This record gives sequence, structure tokens and C-alpha cells, in this order.
Amino acid sequence: MSETKILLSEKEMPTSWYNVMADMPNLPKPPLHPATKQPVGPQDLGAIFPMELIKQEVSTDRWIEIPEEVQEIYKLWRPSPLYRAYRLEKALDTPAKIYYKYEGVSPAGSHKPNTAIPQAYYNKQAGIKRLATETGAGQWGSALSIACKFFDMECVVYMVKVSYHQKPYRRIFMQTYGASVIPSPSNLTECGRKMLADNPESLGSLGMAISEAVEDAAGRDDTNYSLGSVLNHVMIHQSVIGLEAKAQLAKADDYPDVVIGCCGGGSNFAGIAFPFVHDKLTKGAKVRAIASEPAACPTLTKGKFTYDYGDTAGIVPILNMYTLGHDFMPPGIHAGGLRYHGDSPLVSRLYHDGIIEAEARAQRPCFEAAVMFAQNEGILPAPESSHAIRLAVDEALKCKEAGEAKTILFCLSGNGYLDLPSYDAYIGGKLEDYEYPESLIEESLKKLPVTE
Amino acid sequence: MSETKILLSEKEMPTSWYNVMADMPNLPKPPLHPATKQPVGPQDLGAIFPMELIKQEVSTDRWIEIPEEVQEIYKLWRPSPLYRAYRLEKALDTPAKIYYKYEGVSPAGSHKPNTAIPQAYYNKQAGIKRLATETGAGQWGSALSIACKFFDMECVVYMVKVSYHQKPYRRIFMQTYGASVIPSPSNLTECGRKMLADNPESLGSLGMAISEAVEDAAGRDDTNYSLGSVLNHVMIHQSVIGLEAKAQLAKADDYPDVVIGCCGGGSNFAGIAFPFVHDKLTKGAKVRAIASEPAACPTLTKGKFTYDYGDTAGIVPILNMYTLGHDFMPPGIHAGGLRYHGDSPLVSRLYHDGIIEAEARAQRPCFEAAVMFAQNEGILPAPESSHAIRLAVDEALKCKEAGEAKTILFCLSGNGYLDLPSYDAYIGGKLEDYEYPESLIEESLKKLPVTE
Repeated sequence: MSETKILLSEKEMPTSWYNVMADMPNLPKPPLHPATKQPVGPQDLGAIFPMELIKQEVSTDRWIEIPEEVQEIYKLWRPSPLYRAYRLEKALDTPAKIYYKYEGVSPAGSHKPNTAIPQAYYNKQAGIKRLATETGAGQWGSALSIACKFFDMECVVYMVKVSYHQKPYRRIFMQTYGASVIPSPSNLTECGRKMLADNPESLGSLGMAISEAVEDAAGRDDTNYSLGSVLNHVMIHQSVIGLEAKAQLAKADDYPDVVIGCCGGGSNFAGIAFPFVHDKLTKGAKVRAIASEPAACPTLTKGKFTYDYGDTAGIVPILNMYTLGHDFMPPGIHAGGLRYHGDSPLVSRLYHDGIIEAEARAQRPCFEAAVMFAQNEGILPAPESSHAIRLAVDEALKCKEAGEAKTILFCLSGNGYLDLPSYDAYIGGKLEDYEYPESLIEESLKKLPVTE
Repeated sequence: MSETKILLSEKEMPTSWYNVMADMPNLPKPPLHPATKQPVGPQDLGAIFPMELIKQEVSTDRWIEIPEEVQEIYKLWRPSPLYRAYRLEKALDTPAKIYYKYEGVSPAGSHKPNTAIPQAYYNKQAGIKRLATETGAGQWGSALSIACKFFDMECVVYMVKVSYHQKPYRRIFMQTYGASVIPSPSNLTECGRKMLADNPESLGSLGMAISEAVEDAAGRDDTNYSLGSVLNHVMIHQSVIGLEAKAQLAKADDYPDVVIGCCGGGSNFAGIAFPFVHDKLTKGAKVRAIASEPAACPTLTKGKFTYDYGDTAGIVPILNMYTLGHDFMPPGIHAGGLRYHGDSPLVSRLYHDGIIEAEARAQRPCFEAAVMFAQNEGILPAPESSHAIRLAVDEALKCKEAGEAKTILFCLSGNGYLDLPSYDAYIGGKLEDYEYPESLIEESLKKLPVTE
């Protein structure tokens, strides 16, 4: 039997990120200023982002060098292992070969530090002393807290109030790394005070928390804003996942027929898939890349490709993307990281052009696959990752039916230690399958586009 | 700069465990039957252990082959990484080189699966269909749950009732891997019913839970009992930690002056230290091995080396070990895995003979070191591991004072994801420093020995 884990040495770690914008037949239309509806320029973004990230946001360079200081920190957990899922294959009795890239080995337990570290780095280089962000489930806030501590910067995290109280473990995690965690809406910002005046009992929402973090960053010279998904520079940073996976598969003398990642804002999917999309676009590789999204928030599979606000309040740039409408409120599924109404403009454009695929699954079959995975492979998956596992299992079962020995690669984006209450709900039969009613999606889509 | 993580390939993984009994100048006296006070024979132990483990318990073979099936499962997370703590060294401004072996990469998040897997394997080989055990903090129950699932066996975990209710994450974890988790005392066993009759509101204790698990195992032909520390075969299985670490240090052309492990029942300390003790005993290597125990439960540093019961109720064999007395009740410190009144007979004998050392630390300075570690190295340590970190930091600071570039190796036995409430207490200033009052220890020691 070959090795269970295919490892790269630190010397074999990629030294450049891959930027899919170099290879796309069509780029997304530019982001627009929410007030003027004109393309945003570097001067607009400069209030909340450092110039290096703004440059990456619009770059069409294929390779972007990873700063040495970022590489050094990556080595605390990278290259991450690629596993051959021998035990899962056996349990499924499939002729398919299943590989998974495991990002839960990072100190935050997910792929998020891959972008948190460079974002903190570039901000530090630009003289910024403090980063503001929002967090819902807490994965992103955890990653940015660690990154800021590593670069000796302050970190302030506006955490959706209901999560702040319901997910104390995540809150404590961030505080252990020195972050200030503020339940949102708060009275620290103007928009927060307004929200509280409207509804003192507000439980908060990700949209509100974004508004508070952006206001905080825009109002202070020493502070910038940091976003954990959706934007182009985030997709670029996450490409280390797929670049490593490709090198690891090459060591096993293999190449995937199918690449799968879970998809909320798109950064995990982009991370595992874009380096293979590169092969497809430039070398005609016959690889399918499939984004796995929740049936409760089916942005790619049921949304519209148009211009929409990135947040609820409409204060961040208008993005050209698949969206369910900026006030679409998905049910409280356990894969909290996948509850975003929109999607990365790069993922959206590639999907629109038929270069990548997408499928949606309800949460119960995903948890079923996650428990099967845990009981065979050992690792407890994050609920977000369970969406990738489900699709991989479905593809492997199709192979069994067809008697085909395809190679399937998926990204196990994080571990589920802090999501055990979700497993409790599943085991106890209390997990509901939310399929979003078509009529409500249609209703929400009627408000689009917000501009032409 | 050299590599941050020193890795071994799966092909370089040890194929035999090391047994320190081959090299010890003096062996511990044999375990005694609690009723007859005569040495227990294989026939006594056969009621709850499989013959292969009983053989290992008394073996003086230096090397014991790791079964291939166990090796295959080890590969799901082994060889575990050895880190050079560059960032911690810099923060301490020490000339010392600090290495840590990280066991938190296992699916249970600690070193415990190193013995859970072979224990399940040998029981399965012996035709056993069900394993019973106890758990306090939940680390051991988690490991055995996974191991039983891998070998398609039932797992029943008697969990101290107060932990069952206060630590739902651990309970859910075990259930996700298919274990039956029973709050102890329960009415499923005779001794449990008796305890409940005496005190229906009993919160339980590890001693009670052991009694229930042993009764369960002794009463059913299809069931055996499994213990996660203390016994000789557990120390043997954990030797993979130190064997790997030695091979990894050799790759970095280094060898430790000091080896440190946290010490409750002794399995983590034995795991990292015994392969180096081998060098000391057989090759005259000048390596110090230090067991780090809590000041709240200072078994080696303040206990007595004698015969004592392994459990509270006195139904398991009487062991020749350091002990604080079998009804010593340590305060509820956060390193729950280190709250054992006794210690491994092998660790005890080596300490008694001056071959290894021991030091005790209170929990607040340990958490201080753990937070410093997390903020520099990224990984959030388990509270148990914080005791090893504290000693390593203290040794590194001594090196700074003396201007000595010693090489320090410690075992980071597990991650702290499920221990975040403890960090909350520390950050919030609510963590107390329990130093056990000498007078109470003296009182407890007066009841010893239980036999000559």
C-alpha cells in the first residue's frame, strides 16, 4: 500500500501564489462605489486597505511572490498534508481514488490563516497598527487574531451578537490570542448605535458586523479593514492549497478527474480548485472543478449573475457576482461559514462561463457523510467541510455504479472541534434539512440588479 | 534558517515499541491482588485484559513489534511533527534551542490514541467485542471511542457525572464515534447502584468510574477493560513518541540535554522520555528527563514510594508506585488529566532510583506559559501540556541567565480546543493557584502503605 499521507517538505512549499485572473477568458466587471455607482479606484479602497492588497485585487500577473516573512509563518503548519482516504474508499467499496487536502492543521483549525497572515503582513508593512473585521461563526476572527498577534498589531473583531453569546469557545479563542471581541451591534460605532436605537434587542447579523468593522477602519488612520473571503486577493492567497495539492498528487503520480471544495464566499473552493483551473484553461486538462454549496443558501445554483451589494447595509462596494440578493437571509444552518448571499466575483465569473461547476446539498446528508468520514478517517470535519465530503462521496458512489476508477480530490477545509454542538443536533435527530423555497428566492432576486 | 517542522516519512516510522523494563536496574515490585495481597497472575488479569497485553505488562524484551494493522492506523497522523520553536526562543531571548513534539495532530487531539489503537487491536484479536473504560476530562474516552470504531467494536465509557454535564463537547465527541457514554455513578452496575443508594446526588469521581468500568468488563465474556495510563503496556505503546523524536532530532543533527513531559499517570512523560532514558542507561548519554506535575497533585515530588490501590474503591490491583494515598482528592485543576493520586510504576521506580527527575508547578504560571506559547507558536495547548511548556520555558530562561545554548525537548501532548473554558478562567483572572497544603498530604500519606 502507498503512503496514507503525501507530504511536502518546507523546501517544496510554493514560493508564489497563483492568480486565476491571468488565465480567465473574461474578467468580472469592476466593483462599483455604492454611492456613485462608478468603478471604485485605489483612492477609495485606500481608506481601508493597504496598497499592496489593492494592487493584488486588480492584478493580472499569473504568479505573485509570497513574501519571505509570510512563508516563514506558513511553515508553522504548511505544507499541509494530502491524505489518500484508503479507509473511506474501502467503506464505500468504490473503485475511485479519494484524496483530501487537510487544512485543519493550522493553528486556527481552518484554511483562513492562509490569507490572514499575508493580510496582516501587508498592513503592517504599510504602517497600520490595528485591524478591524467581523466574524459570524468565528473561524475568520480566530485566524485574524493569530495573524495580528504574530505581527504585533491590535485586532478588533465585531462578532455577531447571537454568536458571541452562543459560541463562547470561539470568543475565548480570539481573546486568548489578544483580540478585542465586541458583540455587534455595539455602541462603539455610529451605525451600531443606530441599529441599537432601532432595536435594542437586536441579535446582530453578519451584514451589521461588516458595517461596524468598515466604519471603525474608515474612521481611524491607524486602522484598516480585513475580509476573509470574496475578494480577489483572498482567492490569490488561498491558492497555496491547490498548488501544494498538485505537487503532492504528482508525487503519487496522480492527477484529479474531479476537484471539490465547499463554497460560501468562495475562498476555500478557489484555493483548492484554481490551480487546476489553470491547467484546464492553459493546457486543456480534463479536470472538473465543483463548488459545493448549501441547499439553504444556493448562491451559484439558484442565484443571479449581476451587480449586488456585498453587505446588507450597502456601504461596501457593489460587486459583479452570483447573488441571492443582499437582504437574503438564509436559515441558521450549522455550516455558518457558507451562509453568504453572494460569492467571489472570480468564482462567479468562472461559473457563469461554464469553466467550473456547482452543486447544492442539504445539511443532513452532509452531516451523514461527515460522520462516516470521521468514523473511517478519524478526523472530525467542520460542518462547512462536510459539504465537500458529501459531493466527494457522491462522486465516489457514481464511480462504483459505473465501475470507473476516477481520482477525486477534495479540500477538508477545517476541523470540527468547536462545532460539536452541531454534531449533537445531528446525532440527536434534531438537524433540519433546509431547502430554501423557490418562491422566496424569486422574491429576493426581484430586487436585482442594484445597478446595470 | 533550518526547517520549522522536522518530519519523518511514514517509511521512517518506528516498527517496534521500546520497553524500558529491559534496561532498568531495578523493576517495580509486582502488582498485588487487592483481596489476597498476593502477586496477581495472568489468570487474574485475564478476566479483563487480553493475553497479549498481559504479556507486554511483564515483558522485559527491549523491543516489541508494532503489529502491521496498528502501524497502518498510526499513519493517519503519525509520524507526528517535531517543531523547532524559533518564535518562542526569540520571544524568550534565550540561547537555548527548544524543540517540541506535537501529539495534538491525532484525531482525538492528544497522544492517547497511541495506546488506544493497539489496545483495541489486541482485544479484537482475542475475540473481544466490547471495551469498557472510564473517563474524567474525556481525552482517554475520545481516543478509545475512535479506536473501537476502527476495529468495529462497541465502546462503553463511564464518564464522571460532573464532567458529563460540564463538558458536553467531550461527551458529543465520543458519541460521534459511536461510543455509549454513561454518566457515572450509574445504575447499570452493582457498585454504581450502591454509590447512588449512598448518595443519589453524587457527582461521581474517577475512582467510582473505574470501579463501574471494571465491574462491567469482569461481568461479561464479550467485554474487556481498557486503561489509558499507569500500566506498563501503556508506557510501551507511548514510546513511539520518543522514538520518533529521537530520529527527528538526529535529522537536525541534535540531541537533547533536557527532555520534559507532563506527568499525571505518566504515559505522556514515559512516551517522550523513555527512549532517551534508554540512551542514558545503556550508553551513558548525559540527558536529563524531567516529569512535570501539578503542584495541586504532586505525586512524585511529595508522595511516597510504596504499595497503594490504583483506584478509590480498592478493587483493581495494588501497585508499587509513588502515591499521595488512594483517597487523596486533588482540587479541580484545569489539567484534569494530571489529577491522579498515583503514578506509573515504571516512572515511579526510575524516579526512586534517581534516573529521572520531577518538578511541580502551580497552574497559573503554566497557563501563562501556554498563552505565551500560543501567541508565538500558534498552537493552542491542552492544559496538561502547559505543565511541560512551563518547565521548558523555565529551563530556557535558566540558559539565558547562564548564557548556555542547551537543547530542550518537550512533548506538547495535546491541543486545547476543547479546553477553552479554562483559558477563559485564566484570561478573566479567575484561575486559582492550588498548592496542596503539606498537612493534608501528610494526613493522606499516613494511610500508607496498604501492604508491605
